[in-house]
Amino acid sequence: MKIGIADTTFSRVNMGAVAIDELRRHATIRIERYTVPGIKDLPVACKKLFEERGCDLVMALGMPGGKDKDKLCAHEASQGLQLAMLMTNKHIIEVFVHEDEAKDDRELAWLLEQRTREHAVNAVKLLLYPKELERDAGTGQRQGFPDAGPARQ
Amino acid sequence: MKIGIADTTFSRVNMGAVAIDELRRHATIRIERYTVPGIKDLPVACKKLFEERGCDLVMALGMPGGKDKDKLCAHEASQGLQLAMLMTNKHIIEVFVHEDEAKDDRELAWLLEQRTREHAVNAVKLLLYPKELERDAGTGQRQGFPDAGPARQ
Amino acid sequence: MKIGIADTTFSRVNMGAVAIDELRRHATIRIERYTVPGIKDLPVACKKLFEERGCDLVMALGMPGGKDKDKLCAHEASQGLQLAMLMTNKHIIEVFVHEDEAKDDRELAWLLEQRTREHAVNAVKLLLYPKELERDAGTGQRQGFPDAGPARQ
Amino acid sequence: MKIGIADTTFSRVNMGAVAIDELRRHATIRIERYTVPGIKDLPVACKKLFEERGCDLVMALGMPGGKDKDKLCAHEASQGLQLAMLMTNKHIIEVFVHEDEAKDDRELAWLLEQRTREHAVNAVKLLLYPKELERDAGTGQRQGFPDAGPARQ
Amino acid sequence: MKIGIADTTFSRVNMGAVAIDELRRHATIRIERYTVPGIKDLPVACKKLFEERGCDLVMALGMPGGKDKDKLCAHEASQGLQLAMLMTNKHIIEVFVHEDEAKDDRELAWLLEQRTREHAVNAVKLLLYPKELERDAGTGQRQGFPDAGPARQ
Repeated sequence: MKIGIADTTFSRVNMGAVAIDELRRHATIRIERYTVPGIKDLPVACKKLFEERGCDLVMALGMPGGKDKDKLCAHEASQGLQLAMLMTNKHIIEVFVHEDEAKDDRELAWLLEQRTREHAVNAVKLLLYPKELERDAGTGQRQGFPDAGPARQ
Repeated sequence: MKIGIADTTFSRVNMGAVAIDELRRHATIRIERYTVPGIKDLPVACKKLFEERGCDLVMALGMPGGKDKDKLCAHEASQGLQLAMLMTNKHIIEVFVHEDEAKDDRELAWLLEQRTREHAVNAVKLLLYPKELERDAGTGQRQGFPDAGPARQ
Repeated sequence: MKIGIADTTFSRVNMGAVAIDELRRHATIRIERYTVPGIKDLPVACKKLFEERGCDLVMALGMPGGKDKDKLCAHEASQGLQLAMLMTNKHIIEVFVHEDEAKDDRELAWLLEQRTREHAVNAVKLLLYPKELERDAGTGQRQGFPDAGPARQ
Repeated sequence: MKIGIADTTFSRVNMGAVAIDELRRHATIRIERYTVPGIKDLPVACKKLFEERGCDLVMALGMPGGKDKDKLCAHEASQGLQLAMLMTNKHIIEVFVHEDEAKDDRELAWLLEQRTREHAVNAVKLLLYPKELERDAGTGQRQGFPDAGPARQ
Repeated sequence: MKIGIADTTFSRVNMGAVAIDELRRHATIRIERYTVPGIKDLPVACKKLFEERGCDLVMALGMPGGKDKDKLCAHEASQGLQLAMLMTNKHIIEVFVHEDEAKDDRELAWLLEQRTREHAVNAVKLLLYPKELERDAGTGQRQGFPDAGPARQ
């Protein structure tokens, strides 16, 4: 099994390094890294990780800026990631943290790292332990900020 | 005949379990379940249910959050579901309940369950009894909240 | 020649029956009907009408609701219809009437029927009499409400 | 060489006739015309002009209405045109004039004709004289209203 | 190795010439140029540069206008660029400068040139020195205006 890590120089935290660190704690797995300038370069990087470097799942890590223009870039990148998944029949775990989700740089750094780590665990489950996801179905899981929990307590 | 059930850990109700319960009341049919983290992971899960696990129709069950960012995720997921259907020539019944459609957690839980159950019936009709849908054409059917009914009484 | 009719149980007028009635007045043609729950189920239904049931043109008939969420569904359905056309090289006449285009149920019923009938005529022209469309090029034709007419009187 | 002209009955000026008149002034070229009801019918018409009628380039001529619903239709049509180009590796010159770009019917008629004529020249250059476009790179060319000109005077 | 340069006559700076100048400073590489009228003509130009002229990477250079209509064109062009990349498994570096990002023509000219130059360097790194991008992962790189820098100082 091989997991691809696609990340950017635009992000303000080294999300790729964080993801690799977390993946190594949960699985003995080969990892292939591919850093690109910005989030719009991620979809084709993911597709190349699948088709040219043999990955079975890819984490697409990005930090869209807070302006309207940046939000639109994130939307276009997400559409590209959807298409890349459907063209390859493989999962891409999209880990995007919008710069304006956090109230300051300190929280931003925390959120970027925390969401990346929690999604790295999801990546391992999707690939190796799918029954663990089924067990958590409908329980209001979140990545980064606290879980929402089930609607019926 | 085999129906796929794709659901999420993000949802606050176990929509997959509800769908399976309802399907079993209406048809003797094989069911394949696939739980993913969030709604953006649903399109490729549906496509894999068709192409790798032999499903004839899939229900895509999700609960988008109430923020603008969540609405955009739901839009991207819906676009992916459209594409997945067109690439496979098979129906995906999209059952999305937006968290802000309900006034509180209690109504949310009710709506998530009710819409899932009514769409499970639609899934069975699409696959096994298409003439029943034709009989209801233009009658203002809704899933969850009350039917709108025909414009001419 | 064979025309497909894809319509929904969500609509508040039986647009499929109206379309079939109008088509029969203008052409001796085979008709294949396919009723689905909602507008997002239309694109794949159209594609199946082309590829599994031999249709040469399909009318996609739907009535999106008036809420923002419904408008977005209509947009996603329209994108799917575009894709379905480009994948098959065949025309889909999209006949959507937004619930809030009409001031009350009575006008809504009228508009749903009128627009469907006028587009049924367009369907026949596209398939059998393309020169009639060329003759009307640039004349400000509308379906349902009155024509806008040419900009230069 | 053969240029396709796809236009609509919805437009309030006969853009197809204008384009053909202008093309004939600049090149001896075969022309294939295809009139459809509205702008959403243009993408598949263009694709058919390429794949069924042997065109090398197509002009897609349309006049979206001024309402929000019309703007969304134009957006969906444009996305379809993008896809049609990428599926065929051929250029489609999109000539859209929004009804609300002009202050009255008179200016609208002028703008529809002027933009069509200037884009007909672009079509000829793309197909026959690409070096002329390169010579004008970065000079702020516009079609219809006056050119913006270069940022550095 | 061969880099394609796709640019427009709509832009108010000769971005293609700037890109070529910068590329030549950093690499001995073949360059293929393709000028089109506007940004919506860029995606198919890029695809043709890959498939008909043997390019390994393309820079897509454009300056969207400041109106809402222009922003939508830029969005459609970006979606087309995503699709072109995924259909070819090759990178397109999108260099778009929105006319309203700058406060006057002078700043606009500077920004168009500066962002083009910095992305030309990214293009060279993606193609020839990918490890240099990995070294800069998560450091808040920007093209044109100053870098944002890492969130943790």
